Amino acid sequence: MQTTRQWQTGAIGPEADLKIGEARIPDVSGTMIRVRTQAVSLNFRDRLVLESGMGLPLQFPFVPASDMAGVVEAVGPDVTRFKPGDRVISTFSPDWIEGRGPGTAHTPHYQTRGGFYPGVLSEHTVLSEEWFTLAPATLDAGEASTLPCAGLTAWFALIECGRLKAGEKVLVQGTGGVALFGLQIAKAHGAEVFITSGSTEKLERASALGADHLINRHDGDWVEQFYQLTGNYGADHVLEIVGGPHLGQALKAVAVNGRISVIGVFEGFDVSAPVAPLLLKAPVVQGITVGHRRALEDLVRAVDQTGLKPVVDRRYAFEELPEALDHLYRGPFGKVVIEF
Amino acid sequence: MQTTRQWQTGAIGPEADLKIGEARIPDVSGTMIRVRTQAVSLNFRDRLVLESGMGLPLQFPFVPASDMAGVVEAVGPDVTRFKPGDRVISTFSPDWIEGRGPGTAHTPHYQTRGGFYPGVLSEHTVLSEEWFTLAPATLDAGEASTLPCAGLTAWFALIECGRLKAGEKVLVQGTGGVALFGLQIAKAHGAEVFITSGSTEKLERASALGADHLINRHDGDWVEQFYQLTGNYGADHVLEIVGGPHLGQALKAVAVNGRISVIGVFEGFDVSAPVAPLLLKAPVVQGITVGHRRALEDLVRAVDQTGLKPVVDRRYAFEELPEALDHLYRGPFGKVVIEF
Amino acid sequence: MQTTRQWQTGAIGPEADLKIGEARIPDVSGTMIRVRTQAVSLNFRDRLVLESGMGLPLQFPFVPASDMAGVVEAVGPDVTRFKPGDRVISTFSPDWIEGRGPGTAHTPHYQTRGGFYPGVLSEHTVLSEEWFTLAPATLDAGEASTLPCAGLTAWFALIECGRLKAGEKVLVQGTGGVALFGLQIAKAHGAEVFITSGSTEKLERASALGADHLINRHDGDWVEQFYQLTGNYGADHVLEIVGGPHLGQALKAVAVNGRISVIGVFEGFDVSAPVAPLLLKAPVVQGITVGHRRALEDLVRAVDQTGLKPVVDRRYAFEELPEALDHLYRGPFGKVVIEF
Amino acid sequence: MQTTRQWQTGAIGPEADLKIGEARIPDVSGTMIRVRTQAVSLNFRDRLVLESGMGLPLQFPFVPASDMAGVVEAVGPDVTRFKPGDRVISTFSPDWIEGRGPGTAHTPHYQTRGGFYPGVLSEHTVLSEEWFTLAPATLDAGEASTLPCAGLTAWFALIECGRLKAGEKVLVQGTGGVALFGLQIAKAHGAEVFITSGSTEKLERASALGADHLINRHDGDWVEQFYQLTGNYGADHVLEIVGGPHLGQALKAVAVNGRISVIGVFEGFDVSAPVAPLLLKAPVVQGITVGHRRALEDLVRAVDQTGLKPVVDRRYAFEELPEALDHLYRGPFGKVVIEF
Repeated sequence: MQTTRQWQTGAIGPEADLKIGEARIPDVSGTMIRVRTQAVSLNFRDRLVLESGMGLPLQFPFVPASDMAGVVEAVGPDVTRFKPGDRVISTFSPDWIEGRGPGTAHTPHYQTRGGFYPGVLSEHTVLSEEWFTLAPATLDAGEASTLPCAGLTAWFALIECGRLKAGEKVLVQGTGGVALFGLQIAKAHGAEVFITSGSTEKLERASALGADHLINRHDGDWVEQFYQLTGNYGADHVLEIVGGPHLGQALKAVAVNGRISVIGVFEGFDVSAPVAPLLLKAPVVQGITVGHRRALEDLVRAVDQTGLKPVVDRRYAFEELPEALDHLYRGPFGKVVIEF
Repeated sequence: MQTTRQWQTGAIGPEADLKIGEARIPDVSGTMIRVRTQAVSLNFRDRLVLESGMGLPLQFPFVPASDMAGVVEAVGPDVTRFKPGDRVISTFSPDWIEGRGPGTAHTPHYQTRGGFYPGVLSEHTVLSEEWFTLAPATLDAGEASTLPCAGLTAWFALIECGRLKAGEKVLVQGTGGVALFGLQIAKAHGAEVFITSGSTEKLERASALGADHLINRHDGDWVEQFYQLTGNYGADHVLEIVGGPHLGQALKAVAVNGRISVIGVFEGFDVSAPVAPLLLKAPVVQGITVGHRRALEDLVRAVDQTGLKPVVDRRYAFEELPEALDHLYRGPFGKVVIEF
Repeated sequence: MQTTRQWQTGAIGPEADLKIGEARIPDVSGTMIRVRTQAVSLNFRDRLVLESGMGLPLQFPFVPASDMAGVVEAVGPDVTRFKPGDRVISTFSPDWIEGRGPGTAHTPHYQTRGGFYPGVLSEHTVLSEEWFTLAPATLDAGEASTLPCAGLTAWFALIECGRLKAGEKVLVQGTGGVALFGLQIAKAHGAEVFITSGSTEKLERASALGADHLINRHDGDWVEQFYQLTGNYGADHVLEIVGGPHLGQALKAVAVNGRISVIGVFEGFDVSAPVAPLLLKAPVVQGITVGHRRALEDLVRAVDQTGLKPVVDRRYAFEELPEALDHLYRGPFGKVVIEF
Repeated sequence: MQTTRQWQTGAIGPEADLKIGEARIPDVSGTMIRVRTQAVSLNFRDRLVLESGMGLPLQFPFVPASDMAGVVEAVGPDVTRFKPGDRVISTFSPDWIEGRGPGTAHTPHYQTRGGFYPGVLSEHTVLSEEWFTLAPATLDAGEASTLPCAGLTAWFALIECGRLKAGEKVLVQGTGGVALFGLQIAKAHGAEVFITSGSTEKLERASALGADHLINRHDGDWVEQFYQLTGNYGADHVLEIVGGPHLGQALKAVAVNGRISVIGVFEGFDVSAPVAPLLLKAPVVQGITVGHRRALEDLVRAVDQTGLKPVVDRRYAFEELPEALDHLYRGPFGKVVIEF
């Protein structure tokens, strides 16, 4: 019987005792595959889960984090989608293959890796082949690990739901992981991208990634700046990543019949906004919680075709998880990655 | 020179002096048509304009109301869409023929009859042929006059934007004009309709119109009732007509990936809602301010084909406008109409 | 070890020896369910498979037919979607759950029951739960068995792909199974239905089902009749069921930017048509080969909500399969069903 | 009274007498604008009109060609969309602003410049402002003149109707004007482009424009080459520009549930194809005859944003029209333009 190392904790909140432990590696049977983890991408949500549990029914010892890239080491006899040696990435919501999301109005599913399901900070995992998809050939493992959550969220908002086309105006708020994917995906489709930040240095880095217009939130009312830059037209697409009453700003900025994708942490916050622009401009406002596997496959294909390289702010070693989690609070430019 | 009688006021708010006056009827030239008004349908919005002006640049003497049905009496030499004798209805936003709505992010247009443009409570009007469309053959003038605003709002929400199909679950709030059109349009497409009201008597009348499930808001938490009726599935479509913090209830009721159409008066209200269902269920939330002329033409065609009869709560004579406006505050079941 | 009776043949074409045989019933394990067949619906395609094999890699003894309704008798330990006693119907393409169809440009899948996979003319089957969906509560087994192929084909064409709405004009060719479903589904969505046939008697029966306009193909050029009935507008949707050069007639009949769904047997036929209407009217022409499971679930929901009753021309006993197959050549009005 | 020079003919076919003539320039009134032509782009269709009339009710003397770019010199008192000095381009179908195309099933409109309406080979024209849209700021007049027909056709097929997204596979047939726009528009959206030609030299030029894969039609069965290049996946989008029985090749090449846009001259040709791939792959086949003004405005915006430069094979002087028309028969690489 083999074992694997994993980051785990026996509790969440103040009693959390995150440390490297060991777990048994199950045998590979049926449609299961064994995957050796090469990289894990962290999300701000991983901190929230560790700090509060987010109301989820966690299993202890709990292994955190939702997104990884790795290599298939062994496949069960009924596996059809993969073979040993294939490079794969995880899916955020393993039960959501395509179409309508799972769950009901009363209880929508939030059954993701690193929450309802165990996380990915394990050197080996044995899981159904349905929980994975092929990694892009053009990305290394660290880059590929950023696609399942941050990359897919931006893609699902702008492309799967938003059907972005060249020439449209996209407003991206901030320079975090989803925001920079939004910038890159929008540019890959020929859009005009406006990015907001409170940091001149981050805006300059965004410019190097292709942002067409930089809006410093410290230079007065950013919505007014945006109106001027667009001749009052507004944004065809807004990636609203801030949350809370900030939705009102997004409603000011959105074009007539534009689209606001609401993305963000969802612990205890309300959204609020004046109803006048919601009615008079009739935008679509849609919450986005990542997306389904088929769209992730579309994103992988697009990444390989366009040469899009995810922005990794810093790569940490497996043992440096605590430092990497700290980094999340300092507002990374793009993604924070653990390499195994 | 001919004159026409019209309801007009020299001011709004406490100084309003609504009375029947006279106006000159312009000659018919170019692409203008002269229409004899046969019926006008009132909306709650008409009261708001008279009471507050709603911030609109009204022209005085101001003629109120936005929706009418009438008969073409004369056409200019360049008119191609109508001939004398044609029965027509007005359009709510005359400048919006199809596609994206007019205006900008900064200043979305709210250029409607009975507001930015003069209203319809006039026995004759001379206007561009572009401002009208053919009335349904199967409706009398009073019924037809209810389509341009109340009818089109429900159609635009459920059909033009919502692409409703048979078997879907539609939650309609209340029994006003838009709500009952929502009920009837949904039933005409084979949907399952749930209607809420605080009045048992109104619920029974809604049942006679085809509502499948009646939810009395006084019988405990209506969202819980709705969950039970749908086995927790929720609503594919919600017509959210109440406004303000009530959006939170709509977000509870909506199915995963469902649609909430926000409809309502928009004077000084905010919407607010917990963000968790917005993210976890990823519904589309879209404000609806009536719709464009091409969709009104689709509605007219559907009315003639399906035999849908708009619900007119009461018909008043031209001279009874004050009584008809008072009726709006008593919560009509369907529409209040003025016949000329 | 239990056995089941089934209709089977050791060969196709002139050597076919269709007779009732016996087969072992496998144990129920994993995600398998055992279903007792109550009714089977025949399609013209079933005759083609028996006569030519249609180029498919049939397994012998071959059990024909693709569509059934039955009752779940037992479920494997990993089954989550059904329980014993559930009434179910089969799916035509078991591998196609949602989204893009399976297969490639070079080799599109035609992996259906009663062809690539064994057919349904068996008293009991043990198969993956993924191959079934719940039957409508409002239909008996004979009626329910008609949904997986004929019903879903019409639904997929008009609703899933065509997004039909009330008031649109639908042209249905003939009075076979798909045609009558098209008529009923279109009527359930408030459409105006035009039906063609060479038989006055069949047209009258179609009228009783709700057809708005009857076009006898023996009364001169039916396209001209159709032009007159629609004031030259044409058809928003055409169900083109005849095939071959007949597509040219459909292109004449279709409205500007309308939709033609090409449905039909596909053995050795070409389609051909003048290109002028294809270019000038820019219709969508789309082949339809039934549809996916999620759309079948939508159809089931719509059937229960609208009360749509599939048209069964005649019901035969299990032993009467040969007579039932003969009936297919006599142009049934709707469906031919075998009851067990 | 001023006059303008124009290319005109008193007859079509063998009696054509194409020469430079003079015409009166009407006064500018109402919503008319006077435009000074700077460049005209020729289409193969212009030759067909001159040779056969294409069944159109031409007015003589007939001025050929449909696409131009120019400068507004004067505007009527009711003009709202333009001012003197604005750079504009023409629209191909002046009556088609948005939505469904004009005309009926019986008589679809083919009311374009250089056919039903007089053409653009005139130094000055006075027409309704509705017949123009703003030219891209980033193109010279010769380049801009290629957008109204060739550019919009490719955009309408791939983007307006096809909603192309990054990573999709686009098959472009040939290197004419529409084909190269298809290549460039697809690349601007991150697609993978496969281009076919019988000329190695043209393929190399297409490669320089961004084509990912080059398929020489003289190197054996091009569909087989394409299958190999895509691992049998096929094409998400096919621009089918060849016509006639060639549609069968497009049906072979198209992916499951892909899209074939049929574009081409339409004089006396039939399309024909085997029905099996149409049914089994269920692609959308849609004829494309250019597109509406709103989509042209979208294209203009996209051109300015992405820096797309239309490919002009050669520019001729106004007096060189005969040479330019001859060039059309030699298979230009991209567009042939007349500069004034």
